[in-house]
Amino acid sequence: MLKNIRIVLVNTSHPGNIGAAARAMKNMGLSDLCLVEPRKFPHGDADARAAGATDVLENAQVVDNLDQALSDCQLVVGASARSRTIPWPIVNPRELAAIVEPLPEDVRVAVLFGREDRGLTNDELQRCHHHVHIPVNEEFSSLNIAAAVQVITYELRMSKVLGADEARPQWGTEWDVELADNGELERLFDHLEETLTDVEFLDPEKPRNLMPRLRRLFLRALPDKIEVNILRGMLTAIQKCNRR
Amino acid sequence: MLKNIRIVLVNTSHPGNIGAAARAMKNMGLSDLCLVEPRKFPHGDADARAAGATDVLENAQVVDNLDQALSDCQLVVGASARSRTIPWPIVNPRELAAIVEPLPEDVRVAVLFGREDRGLTNDELQRCHHHVHIPVNEEFSSLNIAAAVQVITYELRMSKVLGADEARPQWGTEWDVELADNGELERLFDHLEETLTDVEFLDPEKPRNLMPRLRRLFLRALPDKIEVNILRGMLTAIQKCNRR
Repeated sequence: MLKNIRIVLVNTSHPGNIGAAARAMKNMGLSDLCLVEPRKFPHGDADARAAGATDVLENAQVVDNLDQALSDCQLVVGASARSRTIPWPIVNPRELAAIVEPLPEDVRVAVLFGREDRGLTNDELQRCHHHVHIPVNEEFSSLNIAAAVQVITYELRMSKVLGADEARPQWGTEWDVELADNGELERLFDHLEETLTDVEFLDPEKPRNLMPRLRRLFLRALPDKIEVNILRGMLTAIQKCNRR
Repeated sequence: MLKNIRIVLVNTSHPGNIGAAARAMKNMGLSDLCLVEPRKFPHGDADARAAGATDVLENAQVVDNLDQALSDCQLVVGASARSRTIPWPIVNPRELAAIVEPLPEDVRVAVLFGREDRGLTNDELQRCHHHVHIPVNEEFSSLNIAAAVQVITYELRMSKVLGADEARPQWGTEWDVELADNGELERLFDHLEETLTDVEFLDPEKPRNLMPRLRRLFLRALPDKIEVNILRGMLTAIQKCNRR
């Protein structure tokens, strides 16, 4: 199951951090690393800090944007240092592990880590179902990226190691439908935005926080494929009526 | 209480690891660092990797032997990668935290970390009340020292943070809006059903499981009053367009 968890590093500046993150991953039994526009990669510093985890670096995907990193992921979680203006579901690493542990084995999970100096952008954070926050000392809260990867992958591993038999289904029963992947969700949000503009509920000149609030609402529910299909069908019906 | 936990690094080779350990400590609210015969210290690499935790480095005690490091400590725990020939009480980091958390505040605890290449010696391990082992991937078990300090200090902090205030806000910040009540939700679902019938997406003769699925989706997200208002506004806009 740890194999289905992808670590996504966004715009990492220091290649040493990429190497250290790869080492932390492999120590904890993870192998799927994706780098979104790394500043310098491949790089000798990455290899040096990876120690024996060069296979994780060699197999890392390097992509141009977050869409490519997330397209086949059903659950997206962003590491977040700060509380945001719009409240978003936030968990600590242990709570994250408790969410991930009971998921079916074929659910692909992505955990995003932002830039060394300023983390993830608001847009990137709004792509996420949940945010994960490590409860740091508030007076010295800037955690090294590889250290954050270490803590979170440690918790994910611990829940496997400890929890295998305590696992209880998250929904009272096995969920009967595959969860929607990131691409399906993004197409849903595009379609929703388009439809709300058509019916003049959304003013593209003054969007306010309408789309972020709707994204947050739907992402919180972790929709499955049938639910997304229903919503898409609903939007198509609305557009058809509107154009008649 | 975290102030009473001393991190002891024994014969560390790379000063960068000392700096990264100091940073991890400060992030987690610890400040008492003791270095037993470090190979190179002070050193620019230590300062660089410490980021803003140079105060921890500056206040670090540098000593010649383990006796000096441990003389005022009541509980000594050694980080151990391998199982040893002589069985010894061994705990994982969470169990260590559960041991440390209820101790009286004036008990001084030391956690020892060994050399990069071969850890602690048998003599050193036998100075310890307990050994602490991080449950790593057995196929790639050599954990960076600073990463090990990070994981263990994280667990020590978590037991404080979780033990202290369980009333932590669920959403990263106080949710800013009151949750919708049952009446508001039922009116939303009535309105949704009416609108979906208007746009001919829902056939009242053959409703299938459409409304139950949509109810389940929205209820899962536990919507607040503003979110319900947005959805109601959206439905009104759709109906208005449709009737034009």
